[in-house]
Amino acid sequence: MKTPQALESVIDALKKLPGVGPKAAQRMAFHLMQHDKGAAQDIAEALINALSRVRHCERCNNFSEQPVCDLCQSSNRDESVICVVEMPSDVQSIEQTQSFKGHYFVLLGRLSPLDGVGPKEIGLDRLITRASEDVVKEVIVATNFTNEGEATAHYISEKLIPLGLNVTRLSRGVPAGGEIEYVDIGTLAQSIIERKSAD
Amino acid sequence: MKTPQALESVIDALKKLPGVGPKAAQRMAFHLMQHDKGAAQDIAEALINALSRVRHCERCNNFSEQPVCDLCQSSNRDESVICVVEMPSDVQSIEQTQSFKGHYFVLLGRLSPLDGVGPKEIGLDRLITRASEDVVKEVIVATNFTNEGEATAHYISEKLIPLGLNVTRLSRGVPAGGEIEYVDIGTLAQSIIERKSAD
Repeated sequence: MKTPQALESVIDALKKLPGVGPKAAQRMAFHLMQHDKGAAQDIAEALINALSRVRHCERCNNFSEQPVCDLCQSSNRDESVICVVEMPSDVQSIEQTQSFKGHYFVLLGRLSPLDGVGPKEIGLDRLITRASEDVVKEVIVATNFTNEGEATAHYISEKLIPLGLNVTRLSRGVPAGGEIEYVDIGTLAQSIIERKSAD
Repeated sequence: MKTPQALESVIDALKKLPGVGPKAAQRMAFHLMQHDKGAAQDIAEALINALSRVRHCERCNNFSEQPVCDLCQSSNRDESVICVVEMPSDVQSIEQTQSFKGHYFVLLGRLSPLDGVGPKEIGLDRLITRASEDVVKEVIVATNFTNEGEATAHYISEKLIPLGLNVTRLSRGVPAGGEIEYVDIGTLAQSIIERKSAD
């Protein structure tokens, strides 16, 4: 009875955000109602707007407001390379590097048989269809370097290599600015195995 | 162009939540749109509902859906004690202790002359009017033990003591479960000065 029901509902709803527990949700709700009703309004409106407008691109699965996203429609991108990622946020990260000018395919997940996520769920048929287009020469499989991500990459590679495609994977190694002393052993081992000639 | 405008607006709006930076806001927005559209709907609806229904209690300033809150209307609470706190969240915390059965007055802030927050802004006149009611015998000044909270407590005490009220402040000392070794020096000093007879 200390907190009005309407406020309690806000707290309950905010708890559904990733990384937000009961205490943080309460702090957010109280903050919005006491100090920033404008922000509360903005959040509500932005969510409602996004719910009605954001969908997945028919071609690459990335978020889009049109049936086919800007990136897939762009004439400035290299159609011969497709970068396969798990999540829309991965597209975001790779775009920020400005090191890739090809197209994407977002799996919206990774193979995880125990959770019932098989090749169908990650749209592998659609990926194969796209990768079979004549213009495509290379597929960069940029799934995460986790166990599931690696297994997914392996599975995808096995399906795509027979199509005569150049299937690649992101390099692993010491991160930019990394000090040898503090790099974990697995990464260091990888960077020794995959060492490059110093030219 | 990588993120649709509608999604970008969600990220911008979520950044206004306390403790949420650009990266967390992006993660939340992507999560909602990809995995939990129901939660997005719930949050939007809860906020809109709360914005239209939650107000401040006319008597204690706490959040309420009615002009006077449940707590102020309750006949089970001791009207002779008023606990003065800075924020509605403080009421929440004190209620959780189940150690206080009196009434509250929420300042909705603390004295902070540099920010233009004076006695008027924290509703001191209303507090004095309420504390002047015959039934009131004690006022517990439970502002924070920060510099501003202490200054506010001092100021309030000076106004209330002349009214013949018993004005008290929460005790300070070693926290429950606290180990002497790890308690900060200021707290330990306080707990020595305010030591109690072991009975």
